Amino acid sequence: MKILVIHGPNLNLLGTREPEVYGYHTLDDINQALTKVADAHQSVLRFFQSNHEGQIIDAIHDARDWASGILINPGAFTHYAYALRDAIAAVNLPVVEVHLSNIYAREPFRHHSVLAAVCLGQITGFGWRSYVWGLMALLNHLQQQE
Amino acid sequence: MKILVIHGPNLNLLGTREPEVYGYHTLDDINQALTKVADAHQSVLRFFQSNHEGQIIDAIHDARDWASGILINPGAFTHYAYALRDAIAAVNLPVVEVHLSNIYAREPFRHHSVLAAVCLGQITGFGWRSYVWGLMALLNHLQQQE
Amino acid sequence: MKILVIHGPNLNLLGTREPEVYGYHTLDDINQALTKVADAHQSVLRFFQSNHEGQIIDAIHDARDWASGILINPGAFTHYAYALRDAIAAVNLPVVEVHLSNIYAREPFRHHSVLAAVCLGQITGFGWRSYVWGLMALLNHLQQQE
Amino acid sequence: MKILVIHGPNLNLLGTREPEVYGYHTLDDINQALTKVADAHQSVLRFFQSNHEGQIIDAIHDARDWASGILINPGAFTHYAYALRDAIAAVNLPVVEVHLSNIYAREPFRHHSVLAAVCLGQITGFGWRSYVWGLMALLNHLQQQE
Amino acid sequence: MKILVIHGPNLNLLGTREPEVYGYHTLDDINQALTKVADAHQSVLRFFQSNHEGQIIDAIHDARDWASGILINPGAFTHYAYALRDAIAAVNLPVVEVHLSNIYAREPFRHHSVLAAVCLGQITGFGWRSYVWGLMALLNHLQQQE
Amino acid sequence: MKILVIHGPNLNLLGTREPEVYGYHTLDDINQALTKVADAHQSVLRFFQSNHEGQIIDAIHDARDWASGILINPGAFTHYAYALRDAIAAVNLPVVEVHLSNIYAREPFRHHSVLAAVCLGQITGFGWRSYVWGLMALLNHLQQQE
Amino acid sequence: MKILVIHGPNLNLLGTREPEVYGYHTLDDINQALTKVADAHQSVLRFFQSNHEGQIIDAIHDARDWASGILINPGAFTHYAYALRDAIAAVNLPVVEVHLSNIYAREPFRHHSVLAAVCLGQITGFGWRSYVWGLMALLNHLQQQE
Amino acid sequence: MKILVIHGPNLNLLGTREPEVYGYHTLDDINQALTKVADAHQSVLRFFQSNHEGQIIDAIHDARDWASGILINPGAFTHYAYALRDAIAAVNLPVVEVHLSNIYAREPFRHHSVLAAVCLGQITGFGWRSYVWGLMALLNHLQQQE
Amino acid sequence: MKILVIHGPNLNLLGTREPEVYGYHTLDDINQALTKVADAHQSVLRFFQSNHEGQIIDAIHDARDWASGILINPGAFTHYAYALRDAIAAVNLPVVEVHLSNIYAREPFRHHSVLAAVCLGQITGFGWRSYVWGLMALLNHLQQQE
Amino acid sequence: MKILVIHGPNLNLLGTREPEVYGYHTLDDINQALTKVADAHQSVLRFFQSNHEGQIIDAIHDARDWASGILINPGAFTHYAYALRDAIAAVNLPVVEVHLSNIYAREPFRHHSVLAAVCLGQITGFGWRSYVWGLMALLNHLQQQE
Amino acid sequence: MKILVIHGPNLNLLGTREPEVYGYHTLDDINQALTKVADAHQSVLRFFQSNHEGQIIDAIHDARDWASGILINPGAFTHYAYALRDAIAAVNLPVVEVHLSNIYAREPFRHHSVLAAVCLGQITGFGWRSYVWGLMALLNHLQQQE
Amino acid sequence: MKILVIHGPNLNLLGTREPEVYGYHTLDDINQALTKVADAHQSVLRFFQSNHEGQIIDAIHDARDWASGILINPGAFTHYAYALRDAIAAVNLPVVEVHLSNIYAREPFRHHSVLAAVCLGQITGFGWRSYVWGLMALLNHLQQQE
Repeated sequence: MKILVIHGPNLNLLGTREPEVYGYHTLDDINQALTKVADAHQSVLRFFQSNHEGQIIDAIHDARDWASGILINPGAFTHYAYALRDAIAAVNLPVVEVHLSNIYAREPFRHHSVLAAVCLGQITGFGWRSYVWGLMALLNHLQQQE
Repeated sequence: MKILVIHGPNLNLLGTREPEVYGYHTLDDINQALTKVADAHQSVLRFFQSNHEGQIIDAIHDARDWASGILINPGAFTHYAYALRDAIAAVNLPVVEVHLSNIYAREPFRHHSVLAAVCLGQITGFGWRSYVWGLMALLNHLQQQE
Repeated sequence: MKILVIHGPNLNLLGTREPEVYGYHTLDDINQALTKVADAHQSVLRFFQSNHEGQIIDAIHDARDWASGILINPGAFTHYAYALRDAIAAVNLPVVEVHLSNIYAREPFRHHSVLAAVCLGQITGFGWRSYVWGLMALLNHLQQQE
Repeated sequence: MKILVIHGPNLNLLGTREPEVYGYHTLDDINQALTKVADAHQSVLRFFQSNHEGQIIDAIHDARDWASGILINPGAFTHYAYALRDAIAAVNLPVVEVHLSNIYAREPFRHHSVLAAVCLGQITGFGWRSYVWGLMALLNHLQQQE
Repeated sequence: MKILVIHGPNLNLLGTREPEVYGYHTLDDINQALTKVADAHQSVLRFFQSNHEGQIIDAIHDARDWASGILINPGAFTHYAYALRDAIAAVNLPVVEVHLSNIYAREPFRHHSVLAAVCLGQITGFGWRSYVWGLMALLNHLQQQE
Repeated sequence: MKILVIHGPNLNLLGTREPEVYGYHTLDDINQALTKVADAHQSVLRFFQSNHEGQIIDAIHDARDWASGILINPGAFTHYAYALRDAIAAVNLPVVEVHLSNIYAREPFRHHSVLAAVCLGQITGFGWRSYVWGLMALLNHLQQQE
Repeated sequence: MKILVIHGPNLNLLGTREPEVYGYHTLDDINQALTKVADAHQSVLRFFQSNHEGQIIDAIHDARDWASGILINPGAFTHYAYALRDAIAAVNLPVVEVHLSNIYAREPFRHHSVLAAVCLGQITGFGWRSYVWGLMALLNHLQQQE
Repeated sequence: MKILVIHGPNLNLLGTREPEVYGYHTLDDINQALTKVADAHQSVLRFFQSNHEGQIIDAIHDARDWASGILINPGAFTHYAYALRDAIAAVNLPVVEVHLSNIYAREPFRHHSVLAAVCLGQITGFGWRSYVWGLMALLNHLQQQE
Repeated sequence: MKILVIHGPNLNLLGTREPEVYGYHTLDDINQALTKVADAHQSVLRFFQSNHEGQIIDAIHDARDWASGILINPGAFTHYAYALRDAIAAVNLPVVEVHLSNIYAREPFRHHSVLAAVCLGQITGFGWRSYVWGLMALLNHLQQQE
Repeated sequence: MKILVIHGPNLNLLGTREPEVYGYHTLDDINQALTKVADAHQSVLRFFQSNHEGQIIDAIHDARDWASGILINPGAFTHYAYALRDAIAAVNLPVVEVHLSNIYAREPFRHHSVLAAVCLGQITGFGWRSYVWGLMALLNHLQQQE
Repeated sequence: MKILVIHGPNLNLLGTREPEVYGYHTLDDINQALTKVADAHQSVLRFFQSNHEGQIIDAIHDARDWASGILINPGAFTHYAYALRDAIAAVNLPVVEVHLSNIYAREPFRHHSVLAAVCLGQITGFGWRSYVWGLMALLNHLQQQE
Repeated sequence: MKILVIHGPNLNLLGTREPEVYGYHTLDDINQALTKVADAHQSVLRFFQSNHEGQIIDAIHDARDWASGILINPGAFTHYAYALRDAIAAVNLPVVEVHLSNIYAREPFRHHSVLAAVCLGQITGFGWRSYVWGLMALLNHLQQQE
């Protein structure tokens, strides 16, 4: 199985940006951890990071041709990117939404996700391990579907 | 007369994306139908599709130099893209907003357009023909202005 | 095809009432323009104007026996006449809602239509030509249905 | 005892209008069922149906001279007809409000009745039998008052 | 000067309806008191009472041909009748809105008038004398205009 | 047919608690009146009163094994007990919601029922007779289903 | 009869401040016009202008000992001065609230009066004549009380 | 490590209640699956199901003496049980909140969790596997803490 | 005089739970302090702590037979327990509501008490001494009543 | 210890203003009762009443030099006087807010205090004794601090 | 040029009040810094501090006769003082609003200024230097006007 | 010191776009004016204009390596671009937000900035000079930090 892993805006700064909120691991650390999980499931990951909503939409469209599912940390796009929502709804792929921090314990504007209703599920609050559980949940879901 | 036709985010998937909502015609089908209408009015169309708000703003700015009017289906940008709104207000061209589906019969977040107040008019709910009526209304409006 | 054209409250004053908002054409002018469109489509129109919500509901009920579709400018009933909404939902006819002015560029109370969700589509902002495009869209829709 | 039974807007279409919501019985069926109940209680019913808020207000005013109570299905007037509310409050008669469908399980605008606060009670969700239970409750209430 | 005096819904019951709220004077009492004021100003009044929004709109339209101004107690139409508002805005006559009771000291839904913004002024809370002060204010305003 | 009759919180005080609001009948009086109705319909009732949301949920679960329907006066749980709502939705039994007082004529927090949307119907405002009409409506509904 | 006439904040600038909104008459002009009305009713006026909420409250308290009623234009205190509201409620005098402009046709924050509910009545929109009608209404009310 | 697993209201019906929403697995199935996960991590689980908010609070208090963490599916208590929230905040244990269905794709009242802000993280939408990922996340978190 | 002292949910943890918010005194400490106050007033206290809303309602009902008043710290039930509110309103006893912390200086959901309107008074913010002042206020009130 | 006791707007009328709401005691009565409490605690009170927000702010500033704490009944300033709030926050003194009536059982606008969040605590609903308990709570708090 | 510099409520405490929010400079320090700026621009400043809204309004009125512009830090009056707003709108002088702290990063009630819409511009967040930039912006604006 | 100056969406049109709102100066004019200020402070500016939120985020990230601070006019991104907000919060640089027009005197959607809370300060309403004052404030702030 092939999975597209999307890191949304500002996640390229991971490990340096507000580490008391987001933790000390870099994006590379996370990607390596995810690759180990994928390897154990005979799966392949492609990573994509962008600060542009349009590029993320393009990547999701592109995934229709090759991916079995999408793991996405949409960053702050979570709260207003309705075009991203439409992209998720438009492709026929299961999408799992993950967040490093517990978004429900932060500023009120972070309590609402405009994407969650069109995703398979959401995992929030476990630091970089949110990605790990999200990937495992996605791979497991895909295996059930077969 | 020269008209810029803008297809907003996710419309490149038309015909394949949720056809029960958006219909089975592709963007090419629509563009061809619009070209026929334009031919019959001795007008020329330029088509532009993008999933990037910034690129659509750039295209609108560029149209100031060559276009007489703009026909736009802003997709989900309809609901939050205030920078796109400012671009429409900033260029001195009549803009017609069209939607394939009846946005007022769908999810609540789709009931509000942040663009409508700076457009000439809005046409919603007639499938790909919303574009046709929108183009005819725009060309007709321009002819009245002459 | 037979179409019922409904002019809602205060539209009998058209051409004299706040012409800077609603334009200088009278209801007769509009009806004549619509008749030309209908003639070109081998269709027949019946016109009905009333300032009474109840009479408009009665007319919609009556149309079930003879009309193929309804073109309506509901005037200010747009914003509160839920009984009119139920009448539209109750008859099995396609209904197109039109507005002379761009209601989304006026007072806030005019930004919400309680009727739009049960209509086929909505056309707003093209002056008396909103009726023309609405009639063409309705006739075209009916032809597609055949 | 004499009771005024009021059927509000669009109820003349009963049995043909959206039967999956409102059921397959016509207004005549309901009126006959109610008459049987009234006969069993030595009571007399007068039926009134109108799509005009003003006519219903007139009928309520008129009832002051001859009726002991009112049974009303206000249809969509339920949600905005404050003048109807004032009419109910103005006459010194017990009024029972009934609804065919469970209005609390439908669109949000149907969840609020501007009339309920000035009625004796409300019965909703039992199809045409809502009228029957409403009439029995009204007659019973009047008998207790004697 | 000729003035149209409009009594809105349920005001035909005046003197009998909830007198602790609306007072013990009948509509005839009020009309006679107003006629005395008009006589003293060499003015003529026409009275119109209706429980139908549509009829009041019709009467306002009709007044364009003969009246110099309108005195209206819109009753509960005050709070939702946007079509009535449009009628007032459409005729080029000064309109004074009056209320018997102090609407700002009653139920919350009575605190908002959808008509006030298009009227010349509003007088509320003086019982039937609200009409008297309203008529005097209207006649005085018209004299200033000459 | 066997029916579970549930009396929610504080209803054990009936007849002594705020009788000007809830009336002078005790719970026993009501249960006896309901038993007469049930006898007349060859039906059996089981009564349950509790001030504990959890116990009421347990009773509803238990009813799946023996009851044909449920009659419930949820008391103040009406306004916030979403777990009770889920219990009603979870068992495949028709449930009728009744209230002694007219909840729409009382404090604003009582105007909203979180249960109504998953009940068959609601009867409010007829004092202890609300139960009677509710039981009759429920039994009648069950007979129609057979 | 003795009446306290209160001019609220910024009204000392009358005639010079935004005359297109408030008119060209000064406070002295208004006071003279009011004195004529009072003279004709054998009444005496005391005038008080202040930009301090506390001073207006003091003046209202003081009026308990000598005045029969109060005429007040509360200016922008209308919209937030709850302590002024309590002062009006605390003294047992009829208070009439007047406004020069039609406050319901201006900015939204001016549409709500926190004072209206504790006043006898409100007159708005007749320029400086709002004071005249207000004084006449107040004197008339006091005469009726005698 | 010892973990308390709490199943909230109505979850005892799992497998029979609205299976199209909640799936076909019973609570026992889930508990067995969780036990396997715990065994693989040399951990022990205690299961607790209740429809009583108070009992769940008691269980959480009790866990302070023996448990290392809590896994909870709070059912509909998620949306209003502030006392449960206080219990979670009061004990010094990491708590993971899980939901079978994607609560953000259901009724609006289910979109808000009053508990999430005091939990470590939330996992929603993966059916009974939400528990599995939640348990793994919790055990992993505890191992990191050591 | 006999007083029922109710400690709501989670208060059994007092002294150990978030002491920076709630202080370091245990429930026993508080109860002893209250007993001293009661002794000085020749009064007797019964203490009741529960995490179950239903048990607190039962205790309040029971108090009708023996108590002169109730002192309650409702904990988080303050914010949503309408059934508890009804219990307080149903028994004819003065009830004083106390809170350890200043609930108006904490999270927004704690700023609203659904109980306050049916209590005699509320005391908040003085730590465990809130109970002391509340008891003294209650005893004093009862002495005034005699 | 020296305490500043502040009586807010309209409290100078105490005993005469709406005694059914505020009681029959005058401000002098209250001040004498408070003085007795202070004497018993070897403390001294200074009393200050004003209807001017600015003067109360000045008094609070002044208290920084001589007072140990402040007891305030802010009257209607409670609901909007943010400058008063800033004054309380600016001085480093404990402030206790008291109210004669139960503000949570009155008009909705009285349910919110903009001051409570910056006060030590709040006592409401015990008539003039609210001051007594508030003073005792304040003195006690200060003694604990020493 | 002559400029009126207004310091609103509580600013007399500057340097001592919550210095972690407002900084350690006193009002005198600020006034001296501003005087240097004015000297460099051949301008004269008059300083005015008050905790009374009425006095600030009086000062603004007075400035009409001698000042070219006004620099104001309205303190907490920013958020509710509509009479102050009217005073600013009433005088024909440019007014610049400044704030020491970033009001948009503090409590929600501080995020809205009722004055900003009638000021020339607003400067917020630079500590006492907000005044400096505000004065320079005001003087520069006046020079452009000449 | 090196400063990044960011011009947000549509600002490339400056001088031609709605000059009655935004003024007649072009972006080059502004940049030259800013350069003069920077020269006078021995500072260097880099200018960046983009209509793409993603590009602005990229530019802010890049600035971490070379800039001492950022001056930004975010245009309409001000009102919804939470990803931009996160970028500002993520880099450890002081950011000053400027606006040409007084955003608080325009459409309601422009009254709220999602960025202001994470910026150092905001300057609005002085036309192109807002940039000048913003740059001076930023440079001054940086000098204070040294």
